[in-house]
Amino acid sequence: MIDLTGPLRPWSARLAERFARCLAGGARTRSWWRPPAPRGEPELLDRLAELFGSPPERTVVTGGVRQFATSWAVRTGPAAVEAPTFADIPQILGAGLPVRRVPWRELTGGAAGPPGTIWLTSPFRNPDGRSLTAGETEAVGRLAGQGHTVVVNQVYRWFHAAGPAPAAPDGAWTVTSFAKMAGGGLRLGWAVAPRPDAVPRTLTSDGPPTAWQRACAGFLDEATLRALRADCVEPTTEARQAFAARACELTGRGVPGGGLSAVFTCPGSSEAEAVELLARQGLEVSPGSAFGCPAPSVRLAFSGTTAAQAVRAAETMARLRPGFTPTSFP
Amino acid sequence: MIDLTGPLRPWSARLAERFARCLAGGARTRSWWRPPAPRGEPELLDRLAELFGSPPERTVVTGGVRQFATSWAVRTGPAAVEAPTFADIPQILGAGLPVRRVPWRELTGGAAGPPGTIWLTSPFRNPDGRSLTAGETEAVGRLAGQGHTVVVNQVYRWFHAAGPAPAAPDGAWTVTSFAKMAGGGLRLGWAVAPRPDAVPRTLTSDGPPTAWQRACAGFLDEATLRALRADCVEPTTEARQAFAARACELTGRGVPGGGLSAVFTCPGSSEAEAVELLARQGLEVSPGSAFGCPAPSVRLAFSGTTAAQAVRAAETMARLRPGFTPTSFP
Repeated sequence: MIDLTGPLRPWSARLAERFARCLAGGARTRSWWRPPAPRGEPELLDRLAELFGSPPERTVVTGGVRQFATSWAVRTGPAAVEAPTFADIPQILGAGLPVRRVPWRELTGGAAGPPGTIWLTSPFRNPDGRSLTAGETEAVGRLAGQGHTVVVNQVYRWFHAAGPAPAAPDGAWTVTSFAKMAGGGLRLGWAVAPRPDAVPRTLTSDGPPTAWQRACAGFLDEATLRALRADCVEPTTEARQAFAARACELTGRGVPGGGLSAVFTCPGSSEAEAVELLARQGLEVSPGSAFGCPAPSVRLAFSGTTAAQAVRAAETMARLRPGFTPTSFP
Repeated sequence: MIDLTGPLRPWSARLAERFARCLAGGARTRSWWRPPAPRGEPELLDRLAELFGSPPERTVVTGGVRQFATSWAVRTGPAAVEAPTFADIPQILGAGLPVRRVPWRELTGGAAGPPGTIWLTSPFRNPDGRSLTAGETEAVGRLAGQGHTVVVNQVYRWFHAAGPAPAAPDGAWTVTSFAKMAGGGLRLGWAVAPRPDAVPRTLTSDGPPTAWQRACAGFLDEATLRALRADCVEPTTEARQAFAARACELTGRGVPGGGLSAVFTCPGSSEAEAVELLARQGLEVSPGSAFGCPAPSVRLAFSGTTAAQAVRAAETMARLRPGFTPTSFP
């Protein structure tokens, strides 16, 4: 069975050992049993600024995107959440806010609804690997200027070439974490507010423990990021590219988008049948409906496969009829 | 200056070193970069059951009481929050819910308002050290039976004699953390729901990192708890008792309640004047209004003083006119 449901790639033993040493060091820093600074430990904020250009006066350390969403859900007003997207987000926001699921083309086309939260993921939205185009980025920036509070989830930024994430829309919040590179067990993310005074109280008790933050500040440097990319990101990118190249050879159709996943519609069969059909052929995939995809579809994630397995998966899918169509949603 | 504003007591070097070793061990456990189990890592839930009798099927690990309150604030419906109380709680809950501040006597006297959240702290409420009596515990249990969702914050339980916390009202949630014993930097707390199915989704992404949870499971045992009590709890209890004994000798008035703090009304002067008067005498205290105390008052917390300093503080306060009156609020 080839697992295309998106398990985490493991860390190399060398990197794990380096983190263990940093962690023991973090627990030997001064008075680490005190609560972390409300927006994050100063050395971690400095490190995020240095490595990712995150302005310390507008940055707040969080436990991750889910934790950020929980803090966000205490707000009032409606939320327009992109469809499709990672399923946890509308569920968490929906615990506190009225949530409407909206395709990007409606958001950018003026159908964002009354002022409230607009939540979208770029680059490389899960499930379909879509990123905002320059024109869409501008359109979303205009929404932020019209009284909406825009949040751009950049959690898949690691699949972008090394360096800064693509520019977010003007006036938008951004939020990201290391989860899709280094695993959700790190519980380390950060949000950047459009203005220093926009950070609400509920968002400032949210980061991981003091010693953990200090350990992460010591751990994160250019060399560590290169090693994490090599362990956990590049093999996924290579697997997706190998899949896309072989699929294109066999079917003449490109696989749009990027990141760790891709979506395929399955014309002529139900989603459950398609998942079952692929399972019988040795491919374990996720149903598109789990992400709110607007058509019967399957999602493949490449974080648990080798390039060779990805090629075999492309060959298997190309053989099946009715055909699977690579798709990104408007 | 004697600091009676409630700084944390530091850990002993021996205990800090033991934690650093456990932490390095936690970061050498299997696949610790995976997200923690939704309700907490199994070995930590087991340890909480063993040490504190917390039933694993109703327990969820959290980052602490503030983090729990943030997850709670996504609910709907009104919240009646005890007055006085630690100021962060009504602020965090109020970010998402309509919050009314209510004295215990109104809550237990049938003025809890429409069904919603009822939040109170026992044993040893901060600021006034008050605990629910047996009769009040029963009355609050009846509220839980009448459709209210009762949350009892037991974060000061550590000041109770070693062993289980006092019984919570029937049908209530309880939430606690190690913050008031071991410091908020540990970011470790847990909530116990009245029923296994009462734990909402927003509460299950809230615990500290996987390796941290596993390290805490290894760290926490009877010997560690005894050492933490000896380092961080008993000196505070002794300082409060020394203060109370000397104050009673000098003024004939007992200091009600227990825990880490006590409140004194200041008849004949404003709260700001009282804080300033004490500061001029070398005593740094907090204004009662910061906790929502219903009368001009000052709060003394004994977590930053020796017993000898506490005795000096009692002597200083006994000398001042108009007198300070030890108080607990109904």
